[in-house]
This record gives sequence, structure tokens and C-alpha cells, in this order.
Amino acid sequence: MPTYDVLAIGNAIVDVISHASDQFLIRHDLAKDSMQLVDAERADFLYDAMGPTIETSGGSAANTAVGVAALGGRAAFIGKVRDDQLGGVFAHDIRAAGVDFDVAPGTHGPPTARSLILVTPDAHRTMNTSLGIAGSITSNDIDPVRVADANVTYCEGYLWDMEPTKAAIRKAMKITRDAGNKVALTLSDGFCVERHRDEFRELVVESVDILFANEAEICSLYEVDQFDDALQNVRAECELAFLTRSAAGAVVVHGDEVHVVSAQPQGPVVDTTGAGDQFAAGALYALTRGCDVTTAARVGSLCAGEVIAHLGPRPQGNIKKLTAPLLPAAD
Amino acid sequence: MPTYDVLAIGNAIVDVISHASDQFLIRHDLAKDSMQLVDAERADFLYDAMGPTIETSGGSAANTAVGVAALGGRAAFIGKVRDDQLGGVFAHDIRAAGVDFDVAPGTHGPPTARSLILVTPDAHRTMNTSLGIAGSITSNDIDPVRVADANVTYCEGYLWDMEPTKAAIRKAMKITRDAGNKVALTLSDGFCVERHRDEFRELVVESVDILFANEAEICSLYEVDQFDDALQNVRAECELAFLTRSAAGAVVVHGDEVHVVSAQPQGPVVDTTGAGDQFAAGALYALTRGCDVTTAARVGSLCAGEVIAHLGPRPQGNIKKLTAPLLPAAD
Repeated sequence: MPTYDVLAIGNAIVDVISHASDQFLIRHDLAKDSMQLVDAERADFLYDAMGPTIETSGGSAANTAVGVAALGGRAAFIGKVRDDQLGGVFAHDIRAAGVDFDVAPGTHGPPTARSLILVTPDAHRTMNTSLGIAGSITSNDIDPVRVADANVTYCEGYLWDMEPTKAAIRKAMKITRDAGNKVALTLSDGFCVERHRDEFRELVVESVDILFANEAEICSLYEVDQFDDALQNVRAECELAFLTRSAAGAVVVHGDEVHVVSAQPQGPVVDTTGAGDQFAAGALYALTRGCDVTTAARVGSLCAGEVIAHLGPRPQGNIKKLTAPLLPAAD
Repeated sequence: MPTYDVLAIGNAIVDVISHASDQFLIRHDLAKDSMQLVDAERADFLYDAMGPTIETSGGSAANTAVGVAALGGRAAFIGKVRDDQLGGVFAHDIRAAGVDFDVAPGTHGPPTARSLILVTPDAHRTMNTSLGIAGSITSNDIDPVRVADANVTYCEGYLWDMEPTKAAIRKAMKITRDAGNKVALTLSDGFCVERHRDEFRELVVESVDILFANEAEICSLYEVDQFDDALQNVRAECELAFLTRSAAGAVVVHGDEVHVVSAQPQGPVVDTTGAGDQFAAGALYALTRGCDVTTAARVGSLCAGEVIAHLGPRPQGNIKKLTAPLLPAAD
């Protein structure tokens, strides 16, 4: 049995969260619900304009790894931080959550990544990420032994934004497949799909076993307006896809099977940051426990429903207890 | 009219907050509800042992300054950060909250202070502060023009832990009194009173117009077991004292007057961090608006009641609206 249920690879980011008005987004030309990459100067400008913040570790795939560990799974993470204060925060938090993380911090170059996250009164989040050193994952950071030792290697589409990282991720995907394990990918963000559509289309067909995408992302991937058209497209191309639709729940596409599950918010929606990440955590963990794809989607919906009921992208409640009725008893 | 309602002087600290069990406190020999100073090595040890954290700007007097600004008051803060990432976080947050803060960050020496705060299931907080550069406020950091330009200069007892800082604070107190303005002091922490009892006793009599203390602190100051004995002592020594008693509310001692007001938690108690700081913010702001001392205590109780209903030491709700019925209409 592999050592890890899930190995996640992604950008190691500290989230800097503030409440903001819709007017703030308009004034600063920010597309709601998106992740925009910003340079250091733009990040400083936006930070100065933001209200008081809280800082908490984030990063899409890192959040998923933490979710898997919170469910009781064995998780590891690969990503890059600097040897600065925020890098120390990131490394502490992911390890304290029970995730194995041992990539050495960089000793020079840009700082640890931060994402300035604006949460509007409708609980939607808009992210502005200054990628810093996170964008410099190289093949040297991909430990082939560790990658081969995970049931699932989970990668975020955001990684495609940096050229050297792409090669590293393709290497990780190949090692995973060669070891007979599964490759999972999240498309991450609609704009991200715009930037890398052709490569993502090819990846979905050639290299990915389990795909995660929200409605905007999957529609962008296939350049269609209607969700159902995207659904029929992905059905022909990918073994297993989880398509999330916010309050409308999720659709699982698996060969001839199509299943529709409901959203399960665990209280008033406070902050949607991390919803997709925690859906993936729940779904992947359930699959590694031997659950069918519908149950996996239901576990994912519960985990997403927990994280949107509080500020921050990682679970705060006891999601192990919350999801236990759906899962087989622990060994 | 002075430019500022309240000028606060205190340790500039970033809070690193984690939930922890009572067993964790026992295992690491931590006295619940206290603030302990720790060196860098001990801080690293405790941080490694703590669960995942969130970071948010703190510091007792800084929290009070932010509370005054949130109420609509004009506030300034004097304290020291380094030119590091956490120093940037502190400076951003206090300015974004509307508080004037223009002490230049240090360019060498120890890092920005952090306080490792453990919140137990009973919502009590236990603090372990690595003081770093915050402990090096000197007389050069005290701008006499600014100090003379505030209705109230508010100092925290924690400042007494560093010898050079004491002289700086005594200078600020003298400037305040010479300008005909008021000096306020919080006793900060029971252990802090233990360390500086004689000086605090002298300060209360000689230099302080408005005293803030909780039950443990005021009993320690006068080395008595019964709250009422402490109350009778302070009555003879200090013009105006606000004595806070957690769920039992607060007592105001003002010459011949003694008033008792109730606690006003604004929801289930989640984290008591900042309760005393926000009580002081409400009381001081109300006094500068011309309220009587009882109303000031009630405004303080409302502000404390808001901050204990969420994680973190600064207001998140609209305390201006919450306290408006008690305050005179804005000019």
C-alpha cells in the first residue's frame, strides 16, 4: 500500500484576507471570483488600499492536502516557500495540520507567495496572487520516490502559469502513471483555463484520471456557454470528472454514469475561499477509502459546505466526524 | 481641540492564534489567562508544538487604538516594529483601521514581536509573547508634539517589562500632564503587576488619571484576596478606575461614586483575547465624547462583548452602530 493517500503539488501561498465592498472590486478593476496574478508593485498597491487583514496559510492544492489530513488521510505536499517569516508560517501550518512537507525553503530570490483575498458581502472571494518563489517549482523539487508512493497525485492548474513548473508537473504525472497510480487535476480558475486551454485539453485526454472543475472552468475549457454541453464533452474525454456548481451542487461524470449531488452548506455562507479545494479533498479521500463516485461527491460537498461557513480556506470544524456516516469504518 | 482623542503607546505585536486543549497548557507549563514573556528559542519550541494558526495584528494598546478608531474616534499609536514581513502586516493593519502610526520600522536588531496565543475550549486565551524589537521603545520614539496633542495618552503596563521603555513612558506621561491632558494606564496582566507592583503603586498615585485593571490585577496591586478590598484601596488613590470582572461585568470607581455595570456579550463567547483592550477603547472614547463614567463603562462593556464573540483581539462587527444609542450624536 502506498504511504500516502494523496500527494498534492501546488503553489505554497499565505492568504491575506480582508472584507471589501463590491465598489472596491470595481474601483480596482478586479473580476469577482477570479484569481489574478499580480506583480509585487501591484500587490503592494492593493495591500495599501485594503482594510485590516488576517493572514492564514492557503494555496489551492495545499488546502486540499490539509483537508485530506483532517479527514484522517495520509497526505503530503510539494511546493516552494522562501526562508522568510511568511514561509515559516506556511511550513508550520501545513505540518501542524498533519501533512508531510519537506521541500527545503529557498534561500534567495523572491519572497514567499501571498494572495490578497477580498471577501465581498455576498461571501464571494476575489484573489490577487503575488506568486513570488512559489512559481519556481522545478523538476528537482519532485521527489520521484514520494510521487510513486501516493495513491493519487493531485495537481493544480495554477501551476501552468510558470514555464519551468509545467515540466516538473508533467514529470510527476508520468511517475504517477508509471507506478500504476492516479493523476488528478483541478482546472483552478476560469482565467487560468483561458491562458492554457490547449494544454489543459491535451492533459485531460492524455494524462489525467480524475478531473475537478467548476462550471465556469469546464465551460471555458470546451468554449461552450451551456454547462450541459461541457458535461457531454468531458464525458467523452476523461475517465472521471467532478464538476462543481456552487449552490447548485456537483455533477459526477464517470463513463456512462452521470450523478447529481446537492450542495450541503453547514451554516450561512461566510467566505467561499477553499470551497473547490475542500470538495476535492473530500472526494479524493473517499475514493482512496474505496467509496463509489457518488459517495465521493457527497463527501466532497460536505467538506466544501464546512469551509464556506467560515473565513479561511481550510477546515476548522471536525470534518472527520461530519463525513463519517458516509465513509467505511476506519481500519 | 487636540488632534487625537486617544494616543496609545504599547508593544506592537502580531498575534499567532491557535486552538489548544487544556492538556496542552498543562504539558507546556502555561498559566491560563496570563501573558508570559518568552525568548526566541522558547517561542520556536511552542510554535512547533502548536496546531495550525491564523495571524492577525494585536498588541494591547494597539488594539485599543483600533477600537477607538472603529468607534469613530481619532486615534494614534506609538510602538516599534522591524522592517520585516510581520512588521509590514502590523503597520498595514493599524493604518488600514484608521489609526495614525508613523514610527519608522527598525532596520536592525530583533524581529517584530509575535504573541503565540492559545485559545482553550472555554474561550480563554493564554499568551506567550516574544517581544523582539517591540521592547525597545525609547524616548526618541516619543514625539512630544503628538503626545501633547491627544486628549488621553493611554499606556499599557506591559511596557514596564523593558527598562529603557519605562523612561520613555514616564516622559510621555509628563508631557501629557503638562499639556493639561489625561494619562490612562492599564495594568495589563497579573504577572506583570507582580513584576512591577511598587512602581505601579507609585504611578497610580502620582501619574495616572484613569486606571484600567481586571480583578486579578487590582487584587495583585494591593496584595489582597477580596475584590472589594482592592476596590476600597484604589478608591482612595486614583481619580477614576475601571475594574473589569469578565462575566461579572465592571465596576467604576470615581471619587465617592461607585457604579456597577453588567457584561454584555454579543453572542457565545469564542475568544476572550482583547476583551480588556476593547473595554478600554469604548470607555475612553465615551469619556472623550463627554459621557459620564457609568455610560463610559457601558460603552466599554459593549465593545468587550463584541470582541469576545469572535476570534481575534480587534473589532469585526460594527461597534459604532452597536454603541450609538449610548453616545451623543456625532458633530
